[in-house]
Amino acid sequence: MASLDDKLDAAEEAMVAEAERRPISTILLIVAMQTEALPLVNKFQLSEDLDSVFPSGVPWVRYHGMYKDLQINLIWPGKDSALGVDNVGTISLSLLTYASIQALQPGLIINAGTAGGFKAKGACIGDVFLASDVAFHDRRIPIPVFDLYGVGLRQSYPTPNLLKELNLKTGKLSTGDSLDMSPHDEASITANDATVKDMEGAAVAYVAELLKVPTIFIKAVTDIVDGEKPTAEEFLQNLAAVTASLGQAVTQVIDFINGKCLTEL
Amino acid sequence: MASLDDKLDAAEEAMVAEAERRPISTILLIVAMQTEALPLVNKFQLSEDLDSVFPSGVPWVRYHGMYKDLQINLIWPGKDSALGVDNVGTISLSLLTYASIQALQPGLIINAGTAGGFKAKGACIGDVFLASDVAFHDRRIPIPVFDLYGVGLRQSYPTPNLLKELNLKTGKLSTGDSLDMSPHDEASITANDATVKDMEGAAVAYVAELLKVPTIFIKAVTDIVDGEKPTAEEFLQNLAAVTASLGQAVTQVIDFINGKCLTEL
Repeated sequence: MASLDDKLDAAEEAMVAEAERRPISTILLIVAMQTEALPLVNKFQLSEDLDSVFPSGVPWVRYHGMYKDLQINLIWPGKDSALGVDNVGTISLSLLTYASIQALQPGLIINAGTAGGFKAKGACIGDVFLASDVAFHDRRIPIPVFDLYGVGLRQSYPTPNLLKELNLKTGKLSTGDSLDMSPHDEASITANDATVKDMEGAAVAYVAELLKVPTIFIKAVTDIVDGEKPTAEEFLQNLAAVTASLGQAVTQVIDFINGKCLTEL
Repeated sequence: MASLDDKLDAAEEAMVAEAERRPISTILLIVAMQTEALPLVNKFQLSEDLDSVFPSGVPWVRYHGMYKDLQINLIWPGKDSALGVDNVGTISLSLLTYASIQALQPGLIINAGTAGGFKAKGACIGDVFLASDVAFHDRRIPIPVFDLYGVGLRQSYPTPNLLKELNLKTGKLSTGDSLDMSPHDEASITANDATVKDMEGAAVAYVAELLKVPTIFIKAVTDIVDGEKPTAEEFLQNLAAVTASLGQAVTQVIDFINGKCLTEL
């Protein structure tokens, strides 16, 4: 005889299955930097939220609007109130993802942003990747099982049709809170078999999994990590041009998603 | 003439000043591991929350009860649903801090837990430190101003009377998501002038500052980072005994806080 827990699990699975068959209506676009956000705000003609869905005091900014049949919410984490720089990194983005899911109940999360790429794995400046899975490279806990928790490997929501239709590159994404790459980070990135490296993806994935929201990751390459140039210099030099490519790719992805349900992606 | 913003700022400052003069009523005790939490749950005779204040699906566990004149809420992040280990680290703890502040509106946060200590800075196994300030050691962003954002130095709420009365040690706390210490981490920890090293404190501080809740950090030393023994081994060996010392210190601190307002700490 099925237990109550089994029945609840079955009911939840049925709800998830039904949601997967309805056209997606609400998209949560999570972007770490203002420079990455603004081309998308313009492209989708989004308006800044004047009556914040977030608590008083937090710096997070929401832009929203209808684009075709989709309610688009673009959230970026705003500027640090003391320092004036974008609130990048895993802590800020995990908080933002949590609060946005609570407030907006999105059907799909798209974490879009710039990334470092590895030329040894086929990445070039300006390439746009759809991540197949995400993991951390700077959470080393050398105790059995805690080591796996630290790595935090998670699959992105599978989108075989989108990948085929748009001819995007795909590869694994590795996340850490440093822009540079220490030898310890490098060893973990190699173990993660990563093609691209960012500062947010695996944190967004962690929260999205907790709250059961399907998530995909679109990452555009601003700098070649295993190349000759210093990362910070190359990143700043290519940021504006690459965010334009990122904007184009996100637009193509959203055009593809419009009118479709999750299982058609 | 004062602008509206100035008037609002003045009103907010007046409210904060008034809150600082009222006896503290609600304490949020944030603890990363079950082994650290249970002695405190027993000591303060707290009950597990059966009707969670958190969203469905999150693993966070709240214990609560009255102890003397204080409403104590102890929150630990629960176990990873797939791996069964405690949800340690900055992302989990920052989410938990955010959600707990929203749900419980505490007057004071105490982040209590175990830590690595540096013998070169005077730390010994079993010592309990009250952190004077906290910073990150694994968020290296070598771009001007972003570098300071990454380090994220924050002061803990000043408690000169508590420190004097209880004769606790004090020192700087440095936070990162790895249990081990890479050479890059070591350089940052040295730059942070840290005496103790944990995996949560600076993340709790970040969220508490965003939401304007005064916070203190009580850290008990389980392992000597600049000693002979491997960290993981020494940590596991001393965890149970040191959590007992931690429990005693937290009890002393809470006994001291009982009946006092923030400015008396």
